[in-house]
Amino acid sequence: MEDIYQEILPFASKGKQADYIPALAKVNPDQFGMCLETVSGEVYPFRQADTRFSIQSITKVFALAMSLSLKGEALWKRVGKEPSGTSFNSLVQLEVEKGIPRNPFINAGAIVIADILMTELDDPEKEFLDFIRALAGNDTIDYNMEVALSEREKGYLNAAIANMLKYHGTIDNDIEDVLMFYFKMCSVEMTCRELASAFIAFTNACPFDFAGYKLSPSQIKRMNAVMQTCGFYDEAGEFSYLVGLPGKSGVGGGIVAIYPMRYAVAVWSPRLNSKGNSVMGMKALELLTTATQESIF
Amino acid sequence: MEDIYQEILPFASKGKQADYIPALAKVNPDQFGMCLETVSGEVYPFRQADTRFSIQSITKVFALAMSLSLKGEALWKRVGKEPSGTSFNSLVQLEVEKGIPRNPFINAGAIVIADILMTELDDPEKEFLDFIRALAGNDTIDYNMEVALSEREKGYLNAAIANMLKYHGTIDNDIEDVLMFYFKMCSVEMTCRELASAFIAFTNACPFDFAGYKLSPSQIKRMNAVMQTCGFYDEAGEFSYLVGLPGKSGVGGGIVAIYPMRYAVAVWSPRLNSKGNSVMGMKALELLTTATQESIF
Amino acid sequence: MEDIYQEILPFASKGKQADYIPALAKVNPDQFGMCLETVSGEVYPFRQADTRFSIQSITKVFALAMSLSLKGEALWKRVGKEPSGTSFNSLVQLEVEKGIPRNPFINAGAIVIADILMTELDDPEKEFLDFIRALAGNDTIDYNMEVALSEREKGYLNAAIANMLKYHGTIDNDIEDVLMFYFKMCSVEMTCRELASAFIAFTNACPFDFAGYKLSPSQIKRMNAVMQTCGFYDEAGEFSYLVGLPGKSGVGGGIVAIYPMRYAVAVWSPRLNSKGNSVMGMKALELLTTATQESIF
Amino acid sequence: MEDIYQEILPFASKGKQADYIPALAKVNPDQFGMCLETVSGEVYPFRQADTRFSIQSITKVFALAMSLSLKGEALWKRVGKEPSGTSFNSLVQLEVEKGIPRNPFINAGAIVIADILMTELDDPEKEFLDFIRALAGNDTIDYNMEVALSEREKGYLNAAIANMLKYHGTIDNDIEDVLMFYFKMCSVEMTCRELASAFIAFTNACPFDFAGYKLSPSQIKRMNAVMQTCGFYDEAGEFSYLVGLPGKSGVGGGIVAIYPMRYAVAVWSPRLNSKGNSVMGMKALELLTTATQESIF
Repeated sequence: MEDIYQEILPFASKGKQADYIPALAKVNPDQFGMCLETVSGEVYPFRQADTRFSIQSITKVFALAMSLSLKGEALWKRVGKEPSGTSFNSLVQLEVEKGIPRNPFINAGAIVIADILMTELDDPEKEFLDFIRALAGNDTIDYNMEVALSEREKGYLNAAIANMLKYHGTIDNDIEDVLMFYFKMCSVEMTCRELASAFIAFTNACPFDFAGYKLSPSQIKRMNAVMQTCGFYDEAGEFSYLVGLPGKSGVGGGIVAIYPMRYAVAVWSPRLNSKGNSVMGMKALELLTTATQESIF
Repeated sequence: MEDIYQEILPFASKGKQADYIPALAKVNPDQFGMCLETVSGEVYPFRQADTRFSIQSITKVFALAMSLSLKGEALWKRVGKEPSGTSFNSLVQLEVEKGIPRNPFINAGAIVIADILMTELDDPEKEFLDFIRALAGNDTIDYNMEVALSEREKGYLNAAIANMLKYHGTIDNDIEDVLMFYFKMCSVEMTCRELASAFIAFTNACPFDFAGYKLSPSQIKRMNAVMQTCGFYDEAGEFSYLVGLPGKSGVGGGIVAIYPMRYAVAVWSPRLNSKGNSVMGMKALELLTTATQESIF
Repeated sequence: MEDIYQEILPFASKGKQADYIPALAKVNPDQFGMCLETVSGEVYPFRQADTRFSIQSITKVFALAMSLSLKGEALWKRVGKEPSGTSFNSLVQLEVEKGIPRNPFINAGAIVIADILMTELDDPEKEFLDFIRALAGNDTIDYNMEVALSEREKGYLNAAIANMLKYHGTIDNDIEDVLMFYFKMCSVEMTCRELASAFIAFTNACPFDFAGYKLSPSQIKRMNAVMQTCGFYDEAGEFSYLVGLPGKSGVGGGIVAIYPMRYAVAVWSPRLNSKGNSVMGMKALELLTTATQESIF
Repeated sequence: MEDIYQEILPFASKGKQADYIPALAKVNPDQFGMCLETVSGEVYPFRQADTRFSIQSITKVFALAMSLSLKGEALWKRVGKEPSGTSFNSLVQLEVEKGIPRNPFINAGAIVIADILMTELDDPEKEFLDFIRALAGNDTIDYNMEVALSEREKGYLNAAIANMLKYHGTIDNDIEDVLMFYFKMCSVEMTCRELASAFIAFTNACPFDFAGYKLSPSQIKRMNAVMQTCGFYDEAGEFSYLVGLPGKSGVGGGIVAIYPMRYAVAVWSPRLNSKGNSVMGMKALELLTTATQESIF
């Protein structure tokens, strides 16, 4: 990892952190953390691997896992699994075809997933947190309410998307409630170490059974397939090409990737490229799979 | 395979073969062939595994391999590698962003690849055929000129795409010449056995060096990544989800999939679903990876 | 008019009234009213010319007049004057180019106008009503709060549009407040007689000066030009072609048209065609200008 | 006119002439001509009123008149009459809805009109020229073959549009033939004086009967309505707003406008604004109708 870090250092000042809300804008952009955990339990933390950051869209993987466990294949009547061909927040209309968002990782899809969880669960906020805590084995993981409220306040585009979905009849709960829950889910803060640990669950090395939510090996494989094709907004092809692992990124600067049956790796650096993915994070993972000559292909 | 075949029999009359040109319309739709070849050379043919059919868009994988060998990473300045989010022939405009097609497997991208091959090669038609013959180890593989000419005659949409590309300045050669070469490449006829054999080259089990065209293991991996995210038109996510292997389909009813370092499998049945992919072919590959519990994820 | 009425009777059961809110759905669809008023003060009412109905989008003409009087040509920095090329409520995204709605008669444009009025006026709801009352010379004209609240409750698409505008920074006031004012403006109820009388103000026969709001003859002409090109959603060309007068329609089934320096005519019948314009209303106005051989062309 | 000219002089170097083909690029951009002809036969030429220039899209008015005379209202089954909401050559796809171009003045629509004329006429090139010569009363008006061939050579976008139309089955004749005829029609050269004279025919002051082609007063009015809503690409609203007359522009820098029953006016200056309309031409016509306080509204 030190080698990788040395090689990506020239990119350390490239890109710009998310600044659409104050809570994200005030993060020190010159940080870098990484942690790889193998299925046999070895953990390789590096630099700020224990600094918590806003996981943002990475949360959509957890939400998908929960809803897939609850609804099974019926879930896909509510949300598609095709790449969007558009950036994560543009073109409200094209993201929604007759009310069905193209996949669960664009905002429209994640909002529908949030709506499903609200309908299915008694106390969605508590149960979602319990699920993540069980995955990561850490009870101190929590929402950051400052971030969530700040996102809600400025969340006009997501509000537009939610209203479009409601217009198409594909959201059952109150728009405000769904949006608030969605923003809370995105506000969860975790460290690279915690993320790597949580994503071991998606390597299929052990049965998936956390906080009562179960997924079959086949379901896990399929979730990885969705991450592979849809996990990186308009850069899914690029990531697949350069890194060759299923994964998910967030505008907080975090990226998690999975090598099935082998390891999970999380990387974090706040500066983003024009597609909203961490510059150093993308580079680090590319070097990791190139150096180890290991990708799923 | 017999088990798989029995299970997919109920789907034998679902879908409709491509009928936009007479040469494809006259194929007997009630055929099914399959062939799996392992990297150690075992071959498992099934039913019409030795019947030749029009490989159509599967040819785009061969064209990509050739152009990647010739141009290296510089190729990606001419064509992207992101999923299109649209069907393979719709929305001319959206397929081309400032003249750069979204990926090499949509028609716009394949036409740019055809243009590149024409610029780079002395005798593109002969050399392309030589390359495929070397990959499949069979010198009788050939273009079907009836199909090529028939496609050219009715190819208004591809002509529209080629003119759009020329307007954007991203085609160097004469439009008519590029289109004719493109249609010839699509008209190549192969059997499932030959396709499986040819695609062993993309499993990375041996060094890639055919008819003088070389690709590194890393380049092969990346080609597989592109197939995974872009190989099935508007059903890339669905195929990735159900089958979990990189692959490519064609409107002739053929599908090829690759398990890196393990095997290549080709399946063929002319009846297509609404997205232009073989109904029985998709189903057969889904059952294959489910039965063997083997996918790349 | 009796002749016209006899000729359009075969269309009396064609089309379907707006039913997206109960208050509009419960209107008896089999009604027809018409009233022509000349600039010299002659009034020709016909059938239900004195029945009040929901003027809906016709209100956008009054709102445009008010904001044009307040802001002058600077208004056009906030809203365009080009036809939209799309239906009145579809394609949220295309209606708004970098936050500038294409014209003041699509919903996005009218919402921006509502925002402008809220910023400029002390008591926008009262002053807007005062303005309409002065135009029509009738102090009993009022909002229908049942309609307004009902629209607000179901107004997901307009809420999506308002959020998109806010995201682009082109709405200054609170979204909820702007939407409520917008829906109130649309809920105003008037008769054909009152509408014809109010629209005499836009014929340029007399100086425009109502409730303190003044417009020059040149500004009136230009407002008529906007009505001509943008007044009928996706049927502006059709109306211009068949009727040849500037005008504005509403989903309540009303249509008003203006013959500059000559007359204003209002017609009402609740059944709408697929473009959201009154079937009998369109037909009646076509016959009127064909019979009199009078159009602006 | 001298007054108008003095007032628009500050705009004399604004904009840039069309330069996509050499024949247009080599025109001296610093020219200005204008000619107004009244229905009673008075002619007011100004400056380069007798210099011929490429009428380009203004030809679409003549082609529409001819096809409307030949096909009557049935014409509108092949082409719509709604404004496009897009620029004259962008967004191939959106211009054509199920093969029906939105109006006869966008390129897609004019290409369909060219196809209709080719089907209906024995010698379309000769008859089209005869028609224009009859309208302008001048037998020396002719095609400029250098311009037509040069446009054909570079006409990739129009070729893309024609192929899209053929794909949708809405062009009957050979694509190459239709395009060549279309480009010839656009290459016609006329002076401002000739254009004003020809457009008197569309003022409805006299019966329309030229070279055997007749149109009723009602048909003329409706043609004017189409010019009003669709005659200026993406600036139809702006022209309607500022000038208030039906008209048509061309990328050669010409604009013609009509005051029904009163006059026709042609203006020419090669420098274009970003929408493809003559900068000085637009300004001159705006001042003309403002100064005379005469518009159709």
